Amino acid sequence: METGNAIVAREPSQPGVVHWSFEQVEVASPGDDEILVEMYAAGICHTDIVLSSVPAGTMGIDYPKVVGHEGAGVAKAVGKNVKSVAVGDPILLSFYYCSTCQQCEASHPSYCDSFNSKNYLGQQGTMKSKTGDEQIWAQFFGQSSFAQYSTVKEASVVNAKDLIKDISELKLFAPLGCGFQTGSGAILNITQAGPKDVVLITGLGAVGMGALMTAKIAKCKTIIAVDRVQSRIDLAKTLGATHTINTSDADFSTLDLAVRDLLPGGVSIAIDTTGVPAVIEQSIQSTHARGKTVLIGVPPMDYMLNIHATTHISSGRAVLGCIEGDSDPRVAIPQMIQWYRDGIFPIDKFVEYFDAEDYSKALDSLKEGSVVKPVLIWKK
Amino acid sequence: METGNAIVAREPSQPGVVHWSFEQVEVASPGDDEILVEMYAAGICHTDIVLSSVPAGTMGIDYPKVVGHEGAGVAKAVGKNVKSVAVGDPILLSFYYCSTCQQCEASHPSYCDSFNSKNYLGQQGTMKSKTGDEQIWAQFFGQSSFAQYSTVKEASVVNAKDLIKDISELKLFAPLGCGFQTGSGAILNITQAGPKDVVLITGLGAVGMGALMTAKIAKCKTIIAVDRVQSRIDLAKTLGATHTINTSDADFSTLDLAVRDLLPGGVSIAIDTTGVPAVIEQSIQSTHARGKTVLIGVPPMDYMLNIHATTHISSGRAVLGCIEGDSDPRVAIPQMIQWYRDGIFPIDKFVEYFDAEDYSKALDSLKEGSVVKPVLIWKK
Repeated sequence: METGNAIVAREPSQPGVVHWSFEQVEVASPGDDEILVEMYAAGICHTDIVLSSVPAGTMGIDYPKVVGHEGAGVAKAVGKNVKSVAVGDPILLSFYYCSTCQQCEASHPSYCDSFNSKNYLGQQGTMKSKTGDEQIWAQFFGQSSFAQYSTVKEASVVNAKDLIKDISELKLFAPLGCGFQTGSGAILNITQAGPKDVVLITGLGAVGMGALMTAKIAKCKTIIAVDRVQSRIDLAKTLGATHTINTSDADFSTLDLAVRDLLPGGVSIAIDTTGVPAVIEQSIQSTHARGKTVLIGVPPMDYMLNIHATTHISSGRAVLGCIEGDSDPRVAIPQMIQWYRDGIFPIDKFVEYFDAEDYSKALDSLKEGSVVKPVLIWKK
Repeated sequence: METGNAIVAREPSQPGVVHWSFEQVEVASPGDDEILVEMYAAGICHTDIVLSSVPAGTMGIDYPKVVGHEGAGVAKAVGKNVKSVAVGDPILLSFYYCSTCQQCEASHPSYCDSFNSKNYLGQQGTMKSKTGDEQIWAQFFGQSSFAQYSTVKEASVVNAKDLIKDISELKLFAPLGCGFQTGSGAILNITQAGPKDVVLITGLGAVGMGALMTAKIAKCKTIIAVDRVQSRIDLAKTLGATHTINTSDADFSTLDLAVRDLLPGGVSIAIDTTGVPAVIEQSIQSTHARGKTVLIGVPPMDYMLNIHATTHISSGRAVLGCIEGDSDPRVAIPQMIQWYRDGIFPIDKFVEYFDAEDYSKALDSLKEGSVVKPVLIWKK
């Protein structure tokens, strides 16, 4: 049992606005397949916000809970069945998967049969409020890393002992477990982009930037980066974007026409990280024959994508869903770290650190778009 | 100039019902990149019916015209730029492509920029009615093979000199240029199915049977074949279908539930050859995580496919359009002929011959489903 601080999310009084507070919680000792982690840092991802700003009952989600799913820390205690980590090892955290279902066995853990329930809902039993003995939903994505201490699932852990040089790197690499991995995997695993590809990336958060850097690594001949925030567009230009579109312009009409203005032939790959229905539809329209559109950004839960079937058939287009870039974190995270060392995946350009208590400032920076990847610091 | 018989399609008085008649036409001598073909046989494909039963003006379609796009014959005269064929060579006919656009240069001729206009509309100038001097739209799919003589585009031609043993084989192989190639290519090129795949095939016409035989060749572990006609289902069983579903049963409710009854885990690949909206939607529902649904059958022109976006994303599913199986006929046709010789692509089980004048009987057989591939004989 450990006592520490955590950001506890309670049911929002108005949907879409998080109701978080900084509180003390008690964290249980690890079960057989669990690890007690002292958290050093945790990236904030849009999914943390989405899944703690919906009414209780949505998709089975309940409150109070602790979110956070891009954690990094050090193992303080390990359960008896844990094989990959010893006490004292630095670890990076990613999503949970069961290891035994068909998709896990086929090395596609992000399509694990229990992905949704285990990652989005988490479970009770490892965390409670210090005052009031209130049970807290924890193990969000197997980790609930918006907490000073958390008892996590071994499946969510990548041992970083041989990956990092020092504790500052451990903190810097915290966000590799979700956003960057997702964008990178969309290029590497889902579309298998190469030198002949013309890639459109909508939304330049961590997912979009991960896709952009990986498209550059894959030598894609043209990369069009789209966002509403000029600082992100400027950054994208330094990272390999050959064309950019700022969709905040007052006279901006539709994305597909803007893309065709730049490239009359259209694009071979569109990566949507926005989840905005109009952007999704215009991304599909931007693709040429045999073009692939990868849907990553989460649209409204009731959104039905309308596809004109005969156009879809005659164009040979593909529309693909994507979770976590179809990545295996134990492959993807070391790969991204190697690219970082090679200077071609400079995540340090995106990260800004905030004290964990200052999570409101971090949320504001994400909302404004001034910071691509805010990271909360739990241990200085 | 040659005079011969042809099936001339005029604008239907009621949409959905063809208005064909057996008439004499005059066929022009070949231009520089054309070949005058004496037709021996031509398969009837559903597309011949669809594109001659719509009102004039639909997609730019006009009448009178001669359809037919699975032709086989012998070259009677060749234009001066024709390189692949000499007078007297037996030839098999497939779709037209320009050879010079981006998709053609990348070896994806069925996504040629001018595919729709050149194949679906054809052009005037090579055929007119013997009585009345009426101009006829010909070169449908570059060939208009429902005619005793037709002046075809070289791009539509596969020289069969080294592929066939005798004239009976030329007639048997006529239908390889569209339906079988499309189904085969959906497995081979679009989904690249293999031994781990569980394949659902809806509709057992030539496209579905082509997919079925190719899935068997690709050693797919499970193949579920679906149709409303029992004779086709019986045939599918002899060709490698491990499971079948007859959707004509009075108590048949929904396909996705029937598939889940057989295989609770769902399928990895669904090939829809029906174009029936409910079947398309249930095929998608039948796929498991990372499942691919290939749309081939032509749905109503105004049909919008509705996809629940967040389900599509979280399942990692793909919905892919497909024309001609993304095949290159000069590769696909020799491949299918080789498979036929090896006994693993027995198209002789599907073909039934009809005298060209008896096209009404052939159409009836297709409508009833009693024949998978009716072939019109132009020269006995």
